[in-house]
Amino acid sequence: MIDAISFSDGKFRYLDQRYLPLQELHVETRDHQEAIEAIKTLAVRGAPLIGASAAYTVILGINEFKGTKEEFPAWFAKLIADVEASRPTAVNLFFATKKIKSVYEANFTQDTLEELFAKMTAEACKIHKDEIDNCDRISRNGVELLKRDFADVLKTRKLNVLTHCNTGTLACCGTGTALGVIRLAWQEGLIERVISSESRPLLQGLRLTAWELEHDGIPFVSISDSSSAFIMHQGKIDFAVVGADRITANGDTANKIGTYAHAVSARHHGIPFYIAAPVSTIDITLSDGSLIPIEERSADELRTIFGTQVATPTTPVLNYAFDVTPGTLIRGIITEKEAVVGNYNESLARICNE
Amino acid sequence: MIDAISFSDGKFRYLDQRYLPLQELHVETRDHQEAIEAIKTLAVRGAPLIGASAAYTVILGINEFKGTKEEFPAWFAKLIADVEASRPTAVNLFFATKKIKSVYEANFTQDTLEELFAKMTAEACKIHKDEIDNCDRISRNGVELLKRDFADVLKTRKLNVLTHCNTGTLACCGTGTALGVIRLAWQEGLIERVISSESRPLLQGLRLTAWELEHDGIPFVSISDSSSAFIMHQGKIDFAVVGADRITANGDTANKIGTYAHAVSARHHGIPFYIAAPVSTIDITLSDGSLIPIEERSADELRTIFGTQVATPTTPVLNYAFDVTPGTLIRGIITEKEAVVGNYNESLARICNE
Repeated sequence: MIDAISFSDGKFRYLDQRYLPLQELHVETRDHQEAIEAIKTLAVRGAPLIGASAAYTVILGINEFKGTKEEFPAWFAKLIADVEASRPTAVNLFFATKKIKSVYEANFTQDTLEELFAKMTAEACKIHKDEIDNCDRISRNGVELLKRDFADVLKTRKLNVLTHCNTGTLACCGTGTALGVIRLAWQEGLIERVISSESRPLLQGLRLTAWELEHDGIPFVSISDSSSAFIMHQGKIDFAVVGADRITANGDTANKIGTYAHAVSARHHGIPFYIAAPVSTIDITLSDGSLIPIEERSADELRTIFGTQVATPTTPVLNYAFDVTPGTLIRGIITEKEAVVGNYNESLARICNE
Repeated sequence: MIDAISFSDGKFRYLDQRYLPLQELHVETRDHQEAIEAIKTLAVRGAPLIGASAAYTVILGINEFKGTKEEFPAWFAKLIADVEASRPTAVNLFFATKKIKSVYEANFTQDTLEELFAKMTAEACKIHKDEIDNCDRISRNGVELLKRDFADVLKTRKLNVLTHCNTGTLACCGTGTALGVIRLAWQEGLIERVISSESRPLLQGLRLTAWELEHDGIPFVSISDSSSAFIMHQGKIDFAVVGADRITANGDTANKIGTYAHAVSARHHGIPFYIAAPVSTIDITLSDGSLIPIEERSADELRTIFGTQVATPTTPVLNYAFDVTPGTLIRGIITEKEAVVGNYNESLARICNE
């Protein structure tokens, strides 16, 4: 598996995802402005990956500081503001800058700048490592749940799994959430083949998930989103696992548009449908999915593909970025703490309050 | 409504669909070789449209004939062979050439060439007109069924309809099948808005159906295929109507990939799902849909879009051209003879034997 980002010897390395899957462009930089540009231009994407990248960007910034200790606070405030301005809607980015600011505030007075910078760098690495660890735990919990749910089937054959969009190392750091579960399940011999739906309009499945699976040598096929129902009908899918953008108290799950269609088809064919996501995705303050605002995105996402115009510029489009799958259609929600199965009002409250 | 093809004054006119929706290129020709090229290169497409185009191509060919009556049979045989070679898998093309050959065989001996050519030309026009009439009757039968099924709703508001792929004048001659029903329903004030799913991989919905609807001023939105389920969940779709490639004795219906996913979602949300297709689509010799061979098409249809590479050339793809929707998910099958509702083994046998 390729790491989408890494940090060592004062250098931040990232895979420029804008050129995937046709070109694998690895970039290495000591320049925090260049890292900010990478976040701004979607060269790095995916909520956890943006968080860790923002943390490393702050470290690049402080490493460029040449002034006195007295000059540092003003300089640091501007650095944080610049980093936060790179993607003002990315919640994980603000989680990351907040954590590094806390280290700064707790240690600035008593530490030398050298000591302070070392602690801030350690914090950035910890933000990244926590994401990786979360993915590992999600993957493990997911595989254990699959072994229980498919105990009988697995005695005679391996499983075929459907996934949607990209939830792998290109979005999540480490092994990924839903794709992390699939990776570990494959390593442990549970998986026959992955069915990866392309995820129109932006094709993250066809471009990014396919790239990750091909890179890891995991057997797969890419499909058009609308063919999953028919492939289920043919008996070629045993279960589905996808990520989540937001999960409400009752297990209703907002995720990339198309998730709900897969879940409805899975229910129709009696196929278990799983969500894999970190606990931070659960918003226990929302009672159900009707309270999640659904973003409508630009019509041009559908009207053009990779810069190629396919529809007239006047074609009206209804382009929802996300849909909401009711908890009642979800067999299990797999988090880094545990995988819970049904009864979500109780089980999700418990893991959020642990 | 624009006619996709027409014939008058010895000239065949067609809309070159390869450039739609970005360019509206109308071509006029007296050259049968040019017409053959139009069929070969998919400038004209859609089963009924190919049939009528082939008939007119034969007429262009005979109009080019300069020889004696004795020389005509050999020349005509080669012309028919050339036309039939243009799309050897298009069943409607062979229906059309067969009909014109029958006119030739019945009249060659007693007629002058001039008389014979006039009869053959009349037959070609009749092939085209029959397709147009079929669409008109399908549209009328569909609208009457909708008025019955939605009698209560229509007292207070208009209907929102989902359709898939292209079943309009660009495929069918005349007003179309499913799109014909929608057109007439809109003219009669039954329709609020059309939801047109894009129909990956080849985007006939986004490109062609959108173009027809925009051209006719019918209110619509284009959507990604995978968002229909969520839009149904929001209560924004009242019914769905699509075309058919083949219907078996029990009502199982093969149609463009994605049809089955829409039908499963429609059932989940209690939304009626209709098929609109000519009687010639019904293959009463097949007892059910499991007997329909499902064509797998080139992986590059998914990996490239309008010539733009979006996935690596090595990405494995499972690209079904069609899926099969069981008759049990279909509220009604609308043909030019009548619209039948359920009990398909009996009702389809009856309309096929009438």
